[in-house]
Amino acid sequence: MKQITFLLVAIAALAGVVVITAPASLNADEVAAAIFVTKIPAGYRDWKVISVAHEEGNLNSIGAVLGNDIAIKAYREGKLPFRDGAIIAALHYGHVPSEENNQVFGRSQSFIAGPPTNVQFMVKDSKTYAATGGWGFAHFSKDGKPGDEAFMKSCFPCHNQIKARDLVFTRYAP
Amino acid sequence: MKQITFLLVAIAALAGVVVITAPASLNADEVAAAIFVTKIPAGYRDWKVISVAHEEGNLNSIGAVLGNDIAIKAYREGKLPFRDGAIIAALHYGHVPSEENNQVFGRSQSFIAGPPTNVQFMVKDSKTYAATGGWGFAHFSKDGKPGDEAFMKSCFPCHNQIKARDLVFTRYAP
Repeated sequence: MKQITFLLVAIAALAGVVVITAPASLNADEVAAAIFVTKIPAGYRDWKVISVAHEEGNLNSIGAVLGNDIAIKAYREGKLPFRDGAIIAALHYGHVPSEENNQVFGRSQSFIAGPPTNVQFMVKDSKTYAATGGWGFAHFSKDGKPGDEAFMKSCFPCHNQIKARDLVFTRYAP
Repeated sequence: MKQITFLLVAIAALAGVVVITAPASLNADEVAAAIFVTKIPAGYRDWKVISVAHEEGNLNSIGAVLGNDIAIKAYREGKLPFRDGAIIAALHYGHVPSEENNQVFGRSQSFIAGPPTNVQFMVKDSKTYAATGGWGFAHFSKDGKPGDEAFMKSCFPCHNQIKARDLVFTRYAP
């Protein structure tokens, strides 16, 4: 999660390589290859909604969390862990006031999605991403540029704290 | 839009029946029948995302705005007015802090979708809803109960201020 990137990078720097706890069967290059998803999954903008979210602070974002059919099915059936092929997408936008809405409503309380900021993915493949709980993590800025290595290493240790829901923060909104 | 219901109801009460500007060819009963959509459109939870939104104040909501295929096509092609059959859905949830996220992130800045509060729809049918700009409006509370007449009469005058986008507030988030 990018909101604690700097903190995690700092922790990672202090702690050496503990952020990558690879099984003994994977060498360093394999781990490095495993934890990065570098291609934007096709068709994600058409996926169904899992939920919505808002981050204050420096992020100042509003987002839609979408899932491909495999992910949505798992959510709706309440079946964990997610099976291979599941992909979850988080589409983030600036959280901006809508002057138009506020004027019509007569109150200053309306916020809408502003310019896109980034899209993040979790891709389930229990073999390829065995070193990171079966999930590959991805981050693409608004221009499609992937997150750098230091940034990407911050994903897993954060998500790994949500073991009860297979490393996924977002709950399904009915 | 529910956020100004009380204001609009008050205005409507002062102004008499001006909130329903029916063509001469429709009598009062026809207008009353026309402006209310009383059945929840099937399958809306599977529709694609138009955008996301957040309302502060008494509403305290976070929402996903979805569209059926006809609506999404119109948005993506930038073609207005929406053609008959287009339906736009606004799924509203309580805007609640996520203690779980905040704990993992180490900051209090994360808000997620809480319990559902209501679902609202705009259904385009230029003949049936001719009296209200070609749109039928609907509101269903979390238990599926439709909005009452006074509430529903507040939809059109508010949406009618967004003539440049065929009475639709929400813009498409890429």
